[in-house]
Amino acid sequence: MESDITATDEGRGRFTYHGGDLAAARSAYPGAPEPWVDLSTGINPIPYAVPSLPMDAWAALPSAAAARALEAAAARAYGAEPDNIVGAPGTEALIQWLPRLHRARRVGVLGFTYGDHARSWRSAGAEVDVVDDLAALEGYDVAVVVNPNNPDGRLVEPDALVRLARRVGLLVVDEAFADVVSSDWSLATRPPPNGLVLRSFGKFFGLAGLRLGFAVTATDRATSLRAAFGPWAVSGPAVAVGTRAFADDVWASSSLTRLAQDAGRLDVLLRDAGAVLVGGTTLYRLAEFDDAAGTFDALAHAGLLTRPFAERPRWLRFGLPVDEAAWQRLSGALRR
Amino acid sequence: MESDITATDEGRGRFTYHGGDLAAARSAYPGAPEPWVDLSTGINPIPYAVPSLPMDAWAALPSAAAARALEAAAARAYGAEPDNIVGAPGTEALIQWLPRLHRARRVGVLGFTYGDHARSWRSAGAEVDVVDDLAALEGYDVAVVVNPNNPDGRLVEPDALVRLARRVGLLVVDEAFADVVSSDWSLATRPPPNGLVLRSFGKFFGLAGLRLGFAVTATDRATSLRAAFGPWAVSGPAVAVGTRAFADDVWASSSLTRLAQDAGRLDVLLRDAGAVLVGGTTLYRLAEFDDAAGTFDALAHAGLLTRPFAERPRWLRFGLPVDEAAWQRLSGALRR
Repeated sequence: MESDITATDEGRGRFTYHGGDLAAARSAYPGAPEPWVDLSTGINPIPYAVPSLPMDAWAALPSAAAARALEAAAARAYGAEPDNIVGAPGTEALIQWLPRLHRARRVGVLGFTYGDHARSWRSAGAEVDVVDDLAALEGYDVAVVVNPNNPDGRLVEPDALVRLARRVGLLVVDEAFADVVSSDWSLATRPPPNGLVLRSFGKFFGLAGLRLGFAVTATDRATSLRAAFGPWAVSGPAVAVGTRAFADDVWASSSLTRLAQDAGRLDVLLRDAGAVLVGGTTLYRLAEFDDAAGTFDALAHAGLLTRPFAERPRWLRFGLPVDEAAWQRLSGALRR
Repeated sequence: MESDITATDEGRGRFTYHGGDLAAARSAYPGAPEPWVDLSTGINPIPYAVPSLPMDAWAALPSAAAARALEAAAARAYGAEPDNIVGAPGTEALIQWLPRLHRARRVGVLGFTYGDHARSWRSAGAEVDVVDDLAALEGYDVAVVVNPNNPDGRLVEPDALVRLARRVGLLVVDEAFADVVSSDWSLATRPPPNGLVLRSFGKFFGLAGLRLGFAVTATDRATSLRAAFGPWAVSGPAVAVGTRAFADDVWASSSLTRLAQDAGRLDVLLRDAGAVLVGGTTLYRLAEFDDAAGTFDALAHAGLLTRPFAERPRWLRFGLPVDEAAWQRLSGALRR
C-alpha cells in the first residue's frame, strides 16, 4: 500500500506522488481518519483571505494595465524594478517553459533539491548534473540554485551567487520560499545581467490554487519572457487577489510572526519524537528519523500526510498544522 | 488619437491593441461616456454564474484527480474521449507554447484569421504563410485552420479537414468558437491521428478571465502535452468552475438560444446602419462599412469599443451588447 504513495521518483505521470495530492493518499490509506491533515507541502496553511472579486475579474480578459499593476505590486513586495518582473500562471509554469525558451546543452543544479528543475531541463533535451557544491556549478550553460533550499532550507550568500553568475551562461535562482527569510538574501533586488530569479505567490500567501508566480530578470529578458507567455498569462482572479495581497503589509508581518512561532512549536514536537532537525524554513521543517518510512506510514494511518524523499530515505518534510486539532493529531501520532 | 487604438498590427507589446483592452480605449478616447460598452471581443456577455468556491480551490494545489474530473467534464461537453483531452490555462497558452513543443519549418495558416497563430509560430522560428484556400495548406509541416473562423465565421467541412490532415505534418484546428455551432462541425469527437483541436472555455461561458482552454488530440500526444504543461497548469478556481459549468446543460441550451436571438437583433441594427453583413458566429458579427474607420471612431466617442482590422480596413467586428442600455447606446450611435 505504502509503495504507491511513497513512490517518490516524482515521475510526471498524473497519479505518481508529487506532494499536495491528498487523493492519492486517501486511496493508499483508505482507513485513515477524515479529514486528512496535509503536511506534505510548504504552503502557508492560513491563507490570505480571498476578497470578493468584481465580476470583470472572472469575465473579462485581464487588461494589460491590470497585469502591469500586479507586476508593480509584486515589484514593491520583492524590492525589484517593475520592468524587471514578469507574472506567470505559477512558478511551476516558469520552471516548465524556461527550458523551451532558453536552449542549453549542459545544466547544473545545486542538490539535493526540488526535482522539477532537473526534470524540466532534461525533458527539453539538456544534460543535467545535480552537484553538491556551489563551485561545481561553474562553467555550465545554465546553473540552478534554490534559495532558500527546499527541503533543507540551505541559504547561499547572494554575493556568492553574483560571482557564480559571471561563470555560467544563465543563473536561475528559485526563491520560491524567500518570502519567509530576510530580503537581504534575495537577488530580486539586484538580478545579475544573466540571472533569472523565480518568486512564488502561492506559498507564503497560502493560495497555491490561484497559480501565480514571477520571474525577476534584466528588462530585455523580462520583455521577451512576457511576450512568450502571451497577453493573458495570469488569470483575472490571480491579478485581482495578487495585487491586493502584495499591498497588505500588516497581513505579511503578522503571518511571518505566526509562521516563526509555529515552526518553533513543530521543532519541539519533532525533537520530542526522537527526530534530528536537518533544517527548513518557517514554512516547512525537515527532520531525520531512524525509521522515516515507518514514521511516514504511522502518520498516514493517522490521516497525516508528510513528504518523504526516495533519494533521502531517512528524511521527512513537515508543513505546518493548520489548527489546534491538527496539532493535536500530529502530536499524538508522533508520540506513538 | 485614433491611431493608438486602431494600430491593429497586433504587435506583442503590452500596450498595443489586441481586443478586450478597455484601458487603452479609455486613454485614447478620454471624453467617452462611462462605463464603456466593450463589443471588441467574441466573449459571451452574460457569463455562467460563478458559484461560491470551496477554500481549497484557492488554497491547495489542484489535485490530479480534480484536474482529470475537469477533463472528463470537458470531454463529455465536447463529445471527446477523456484521455484525448488536456486542460491548459487558456487556449492562448496552447497557441503560445505549441510552437515551442512541436518544431516546424513551414507553417500554413488559413486566412484571414486570428493573428496569434501566425505570430506564435513565427516567434518560434517557423516560416509562416497565410493562405486563402484550404487546398493551399497541403504539404506544410503544420497547417492551422480556425473553425468556425474568427472574424468571418467561415466553416470548413470536417471531412475536408480529415483529408487535409493526411497531407500535412500536423493539423491544428482552432475551435475556439465551436460551442455555438452544431457539434457536427467539430473534430473534437474524432481528431485525426496527427490533429490537434483547440477548445476555449472562456468564450461561450463568458469567463475569459478564468483562463481555461483545452487541446483534443491522440492519446499519446495528449499525454506528452499534459506532461509539458506540468502538474498544476489549470488553477483551482478554473478546475472548480469549469467542472460545474460543463455539466450545466440547461444553462448551455438557454445561452445558445439567447445568443442566436441577440445575434439576429444585432444584424438588424447593422443593416439599418448601412453595413453589409460579412458573417460571424452568434458570439460576434462581422460587418463591412464604407467608412469603417469613421464608424469605429464615432462608436468609440460614444463609449462603444468595436474590433477593427488593419488588413481589412472596411471591416468591423461586433460582440453582443450585454443589456438594454448597451443595445440602446449602440443603436443610437449607429444611427448618427
